Formats: sequence, structure tokens, C-alpha cells
Amino acid sequence: MSKTYPAKVIITEVGLRDGLQMEPNFVPTEQKLGLLHALIDAGVRRFEATSFVSPRAVPQLADAAELLRHVRRRDDVTLAALAPNAKGIQRALEAQADEVVVFISASETHNLTNLNRSRERSLEDMRQAADLVRGTKVRLHAAIAVAFGCPFEGEVALEDVERLAWSFADLGFHGLTLGDTTGMATPPLVRQRVEMLQSKLPQLPITLHFHNTRGIGLVNLVEGLECGVTSFESSLGGIGGCPFAPGATGNICTEDTVHLLDELGVDTGIDLAALCEVARDFQTLLGHALPGQVLQAGPRLRRYAADEALCATGG
Amino acid sequence: MSKTYPAKVIITEVGLRDGLQMEPNFVPTEQKLGLLHALIDAGVRRFEATSFVSPRAVPQLADAAELLRHVRRRDDVTLAALAPNAKGIQRALEAQADEVVVFISASETHNLTNLNRSRERSLEDMRQAADLVRGTKVRLHAAIAVAFGCPFEGEVALEDVERLAWSFADLGFHGLTLGDTTGMATPPLVRQRVEMLQSKLPQLPITLHFHNTRGIGLVNLVEGLECGVTSFESSLGGIGGCPFAPGATGNICTEDTVHLLDELGVDTGIDLAALCEVARDFQTLLGHALPGQVLQAGPRLRRYAADEALCATGG
Repeated sequence: MSKTYPAKVIITEVGLRDGLQMEPNFVPTEQKLGLLHALIDAGVRRFEATSFVSPRAVPQLADAAELLRHVRRRDDVTLAALAPNAKGIQRALEAQADEVVVFISASETHNLTNLNRSRERSLEDMRQAADLVRGTKVRLHAAIAVAFGCPFEGEVALEDVERLAWSFADLGFHGLTLGDTTGMATPPLVRQRVEMLQSKLPQLPITLHFHNTRGIGLVNLVEGLECGVTSFESSLGGIGGCPFAPGATGNICTEDTVHLLDELGVDTGIDLAALCEVARDFQTLLGHALPGQVLQAGPRLRRYAADEALCATGG
Repeated sequence: MSKTYPAKVIITEVGLRDGLQMEPNFVPTEQKLGLLHALIDAGVRRFEATSFVSPRAVPQLADAAELLRHVRRRDDVTLAALAPNAKGIQRALEAQADEVVVFISASETHNLTNLNRSRERSLEDMRQAADLVRGTKVRLHAAIAVAFGCPFEGEVALEDVERLAWSFADLGFHGLTLGDTTGMATPPLVRQRVEMLQSKLPQLPITLHFHNTRGIGLVNLVEGLECGVTSFESSLGGIGGCPFAPGATGNICTEDTVHLLDELGVDTGIDLAALCEVARDFQTLLGHALPGQVLQAGPRLRRYAADEALCATGG
């Protein structure tokens, strides 16, 4: 019996924000725009495009307003921007981001480390964010970091995720991302968290953001898909490392994700060949190898001549 | 609803054969033995330990007989050896391999390239292999290379796999591995092939051998697991590249596989922490980074101090 998956999902490309902020060098705005436009041409329709953080803290994204000013807007493309505080939200609104994403961590220690404030204080920020955005056309989206486990505290209780999700729902947020910040998600945890949210907070659409830190990012994605989730985040070439383990992989890769979804018969609206070309250019631009696998191996039905095998015994 | 998986599976470690034959340098027999014994201590119970091929063709495994002579034998450990022809089978029998593995490709072009003969001729070799092994205690195992797609011919028909499987069953083979030699397997193809074999040839236990060439090796493994397959092959550290795409990944990684199965509640009998220690030593021995992810990232519940984060914005 073949399995059934959602017919169509939406992929949010996070490489321009989550990926580039881990890069050592500033990518010029012109090149970011080229990348964005090429990705839109390949069929990507949703982006975490930049972040309105302090340019001192994240110089790689210091051009957030400029990027949004110059990008070719389309009604069918959503450009989301991260904002860590009221000032960032104001800047995002002025720059006409389509969507503002605010973060909180599921664990207290991670929130203190990542945002330098308690979760309680962050929830107050969320209320302020809702006030600021109310009455505008801008959608407000929440992201829960370390939603499947915390590198400081270990396991994260389901109740902590639920409590935060209720707050977002009460404040009228339009959607919620569960972020697997350091690659601690597992299929049973994905199912547990997704089913809880689907049953208790059906009004809050779920997006899943997985890392491939322990090699199972796409396994977790398939589990989410089987639960009926239709919104996932990934990064071009798999750019964006793990903030803790040097050398470890971070975000799942957009090309690998699209390849898998294509094979499962799930429509992403993205053209894999065109996407891979953008990823190849991106790799050249960044000047180092990216962890994406399809990028290295080529499409599934890539054909070789019989004399091209590098080795020839076994299988 | 949480899903159900088989309670227990067997992992065959193929790094010593499939992995080492891709390495540029010969690993001394003494070190191979150390590796084998350390893996047995970590709970691995099944190995594709070596190959009785021509030492000229694969100098890395020229010590096949010596390895099997010196390894500490245990009743609960199976040491399988690959043999490409009658001479290899004779040598494997003399060396008292517990199991002999013979290969054939699902596609004609791959068989011609890999084994330098037609599939028809390879099936004759299989008959000869069955004759040679008959009456001994040695188990005979078949492996079908490119069972999910061929890098020369493209898609592989289900009928080609079925026809070969019937031949093995008729010849009294004890088991059959479906090999995803160049990473062309997808969940629907896994399910299609496994369900066909389970329904038509239940007497022939299936082993699945996946590559992570396009990033979905473990997704395919989970699909096989959900179909009820309880035997999988993987390699320590993910050693063993793709014979076609330089830089692309090959075999799925044993540590990553055990980590995933642990999290799914599927017993492998292998201690992940001990396994990772062996993989770390193996990486040092080989002198280059291995593609395994858990090896880089550490165990899922690895804890960090709050000042260890490399970066601190977003998630």
C-alpha cells in the first residue's frame, strides 16, 4: 500500500537569513538580490529574506532595508523578515516586509543565551509585536527555537511548547514555526508535538524547520508530512551550520528537500533543475562547498557513459 | 497515533569491505582486526568483512584470508565475504567465511561494467556458486546492485529485480540484498520492490543497502522498516563514496543509522556511544573527515555550557 502525503506544500527558503548570517563575509546586496530573483524564477514563493537585527551583531544582514527596497515584489511571493525586538519590527514595517517573524526559545536557558532575556520577558515582547503589527497588512509569525530539545537543558517538555503556542494564538499570530535549532528532533517527537498542536490549536498553522545535524533532517520532514504539515523551511545548498558543533551540518538543504518531495509526488512548485543551478552559483559565490547532496550528485536520472565509473567492484 | 516498527533489526557493517576498497591506502590487517573486534565489542553482530577479489584489482582487501584467519570467531557473529567468481568462492570457503555474498546487477549495462559479463553469464556463475557452497555450513547471499536505478540505463524495471530474485530463490540462496549503488532509491521505489518480494518470495529474507548520495538514505531506510524489513547495511562513519560522482556521499552511516533506530525504539543491539568511539578512532586512522553526522555533532542529549554557542541570533 503506497502512502498518502499532502498534494502540495510550501517551502520557505531561509538561506538568505539563517544561512548568510553564519557566513564569514558580507554578501553584497546586489548578489543577494540576484539570488532572490533567481530563486523566485525557479518557483520559490516564500522567503525568510533577512533580519532586522543590529548591524553590529549581524553585519552580514546590515542591508535588510535596502534588500527589501530593491527586490522585485510579486503578489504571489512572501518576503518574511526576522525582528528580535520592537525596533526591528518598526524597521521591518517601514521596509514593507510581508511578514514579520519573532523568536522565542522553548527553554529558559536558550532564551537567555539567544535573546538575553527571560521567556516571560520575550512573551511581553510578543505582545508588543502584536500591538505594533495590528492594523497593518503585515502577517505576524512566531518561531519557537529548540522546540525539540535544548543544547543546554536537554529534553524540552511538550507543555513548554504548548504554553508558548497558546500565547501566540491568543495574540492573533498567523503561524508558528517549530525550530529544531541544534538537530535534536526525532520522528516520535515531531509527531508528538505536531499532533498536540493540530488537536489543541488548529487555528495556528504549523511550519517545521529541521536541521540535519544528526543526519535525520529529512526523516523528520517526512514524519511531519505524514502528520499533514504542509509548510517547511530549508536553505539553499544546506547553508547555515550548527551554532554549537563546528563542522556539523545545520539547516536541511532546499534542493535535497525538493528532490525528495518530487519523488514522493508532493508538489512544491519549484523546478529542481533550475534550483540546482542557483545553488551551484551560490556555492561559487560563497567560495566553499555546501553540504547539499543533490548539488554534488546531480539529479536522480543523471546518466553516465559506461566508462565513467571510478571503481568497479561490488555495489 | 505513534507508528509501529519492527522491535529489532540487524545491522550489517560494510565499512571494512565496501568502505575500505574506496580508500586510497591499504589499512594494515592488524588495524582491520582491531576495528572488527572493537565493533563486535560495541554490539555489531554481522559484517561484510572483506572480499575475495583479485588483489591486483582491489589491493586494499588483499589480506582477506589473513583477516578471516586471525579474527576472533564467535557463534553469534557472522562474517560475510564477497566473492566475484568461483575462485573467490573457493578462497572464501577455505578461509571459513560464515557467509559468501555474490553480486549481480539489475541492469545489463551495469553488470557488464561492474563484472565484465552479461547478467545471463552472471546467473550461470550463481548456479556454480550454489554448487560450490552446497553441503557446507556456509550461507549463500545474493546482492542485486543498482536495484533502484542504474547510472547508465536510468530506471530499472521491477520485473528485472523479480526475475533475478526468483533465480536466487530457486538456487536456495539464504538471503538477498537490494543495493542502491548510486543513490537512486526513493521511498515509493523501496516500498514497491520490498512489497513485491515479500508477497512473491517470502522465503528470501530481504536486506536493504542504501546510499546517502542524494540525502535520503535514512528516509529510504525508514520506509523499508515500515514495510517490515529487519536487515540493513551501513558503514562506519559513512565511509565509501559514490563510484560516479566525486565528492558525493556513499553508504549510509552506521552511527547515524543506530542513532535513528534508537530514537524510533528499534533495538539494534549496538551501543551508540561505544560505536561512536570506534568511528572516531577510524576517522583518525584514515586521516580524513568521514561523512557521518552524529560523529561530528555528538549524541542527541550532548549538553553545552551557556557560553559555548558560536552565534546567538535566531534559530
